Amino acid sequence: MPTKNKSFDLNAFLASRTESVNRALDRFLPGEKTRPATIHRAMRYSIFAGGKRMRPAILLAAAAACGGTEKEALPLACAVECIHTYSLIHDDLPAMDNDDFRRGKPTNHKVFGEGIAVLAGDALLTQAFEIAAQARSWPRYSHRDLILEIARASGSLQLVAGQVADLEGEGKKLSVADLRYIHERKTSALLCCSVRLGGMSANCTPAQLAALTQFGYHVGLAFQVIDDILDVTQTSEQLGKTAGKDVAVQKATYPAIVGLEKSRRIATQLTDKAFGALKIFRGQAVALEALAEYLLKRDK
Amino acid sequence: MPTKNKSFDLNAFLASRTESVNRALDRFLPGEKTRPATIHRAMRYSIFAGGKRMRPAILLAAAAACGGTEKEALPLACAVECIHTYSLIHDDLPAMDNDDFRRGKPTNHKVFGEGIAVLAGDALLTQAFEIAAQARSWPRYSHRDLILEIARASGSLQLVAGQVADLEGEGKKLSVADLRYIHERKTSALLCCSVRLGGMSANCTPAQLAALTQFGYHVGLAFQVIDDILDVTQTSEQLGKTAGKDVAVQKATYPAIVGLEKSRRIATQLTDKAFGALKIFRGQAVALEALAEYLLKRDK
Repeated sequence: MPTKNKSFDLNAFLASRTESVNRALDRFLPGEKTRPATIHRAMRYSIFAGGKRMRPAILLAAAAACGGTEKEALPLACAVECIHTYSLIHDDLPAMDNDDFRRGKPTNHKVFGEGIAVLAGDALLTQAFEIAAQARSWPRYSHRDLILEIARASGSLQLVAGQVADLEGEGKKLSVADLRYIHERKTSALLCCSVRLGGMSANCTPAQLAALTQFGYHVGLAFQVIDDILDVTQTSEQLGKTAGKDVAVQKATYPAIVGLEKSRRIATQLTDKAFGALKIFRGQAVALEALAEYLLKRDK
Repeated sequence: MPTKNKSFDLNAFLASRTESVNRALDRFLPGEKTRPATIHRAMRYSIFAGGKRMRPAILLAAAAACGGTEKEALPLACAVECIHTYSLIHDDLPAMDNDDFRRGKPTNHKVFGEGIAVLAGDALLTQAFEIAAQARSWPRYSHRDLILEIARASGSLQLVAGQVADLEGEGKKLSVADLRYIHERKTSALLCCSVRLGGMSANCTPAQLAALTQFGYHVGLAFQVIDDILDVTQTSEQLGKTAGKDVAVQKATYPAIVGLEKSRRIATQLTDKAFGALKIFRGQAVALEALAEYLLKRDK
């Protein structure tokens, strides 16, 4: 684990980026009173439910590592947050994971009903593309590239595939390879896409994009392994969502398959690989490094 | 009602375009065996459930009116069909319209379960943007424009708004103005978007785009009024979906509010307005004219 970035103030970085993202999301999303008010209330309820804004933060950190500006990265940061939030709303539905709480608040369908929750997810997914289309493009990274990046990371071969495999894996005995397949899609795909979009917003070089891809892939996997660990070791109050859920529904997780100890080792190894990918930035990726370290040590 | 296009063979046009669209959709969608197979089977089940391909057809007809090629219009035609199919899958869910049959076959959730049906809709919506990003762009109509066109027609102010208002209107006494609000969004928005995208794929002039917009708006409204009429006058066998549904759930419709006779008059007036918008094409819009006439006279 690197310790070189002790001087970087991650909390200040996260607080300032979260505020920027929240302000931008507030501008991009139709107001609460815009007809039909129900759908805009429902979209905003979940978008502003106190999420950690981890994907936008890592996107903005990647943009900074490539010398980009926050302003040019913000639309893409909002787009990935809309995708992430839509996927949570739909994953929480009774027909899926059937969760009553998320981020310490009742889930969207508990407040607005299932029909509106499905539609709020649909609208946020659609909104993501509307926002992304308004980002700045470059000769090297056109709107075509940006849209394809988001659509592929979110589609039936990645984000949706992860949720399907997760759903179908419940109660079954999965191998570590099966679990890796799920994690790559359920979590790593959108995180990796976020990191890449950050680079693209800064007109990064192809070599930088390749490094960011390696970084994003490994951080994404580490992130999900840690999520599995926290589900076993933390309480619902600490997590702000139902803890012990994975065990209750016999969901295959790293702790269940290889044990807690080895799961922690895997998370550390993945994070180390992520750090390795950042060498190309020669110390300019301080925010990315600090974020990866934070994600590994988080307790919720 | 115009009768000038008696020589145009609409059936041949529809058959040939449906075949092109089906072949293109087959190329764009991941195969049935692509992992996870369930989601790709579910997506393909609804995409190839025998839909009329009315939106792709009208998009291709608009492209032809502007001198464009089928090849350049096809990706956008497939994109709108993915949007349309996703919206049907989600609308049919128990939490929404709760329909067991669609196009004469069991609805997606009846075959694959609710969880997969939600995800198949999500995946098709995402796929639409992936496909649209692969369409040809022009200096006048960039990928940014194409994506914004689709996202806005499908988002919380249009397609999703129509479904929300429809859901919230059940069992309530609605005015003709309320009903018009719903129809504009539930049906007209995506039809109008399809017609516009056809023009954009052909690098149409701004004047042509304005004419297509007028045409699409009015045909879209006429289409929905006729849907309401058919729900009252036809049997489930004739429609391939549950007839009399609107009355059963006390859904506000034109026949319910203004009666059958006046509903038919409104549909004719809307179609006439649509025809009026086509004058600018000086007889080059034969396919669009024939389609509009067909949509008014259809019995299913």
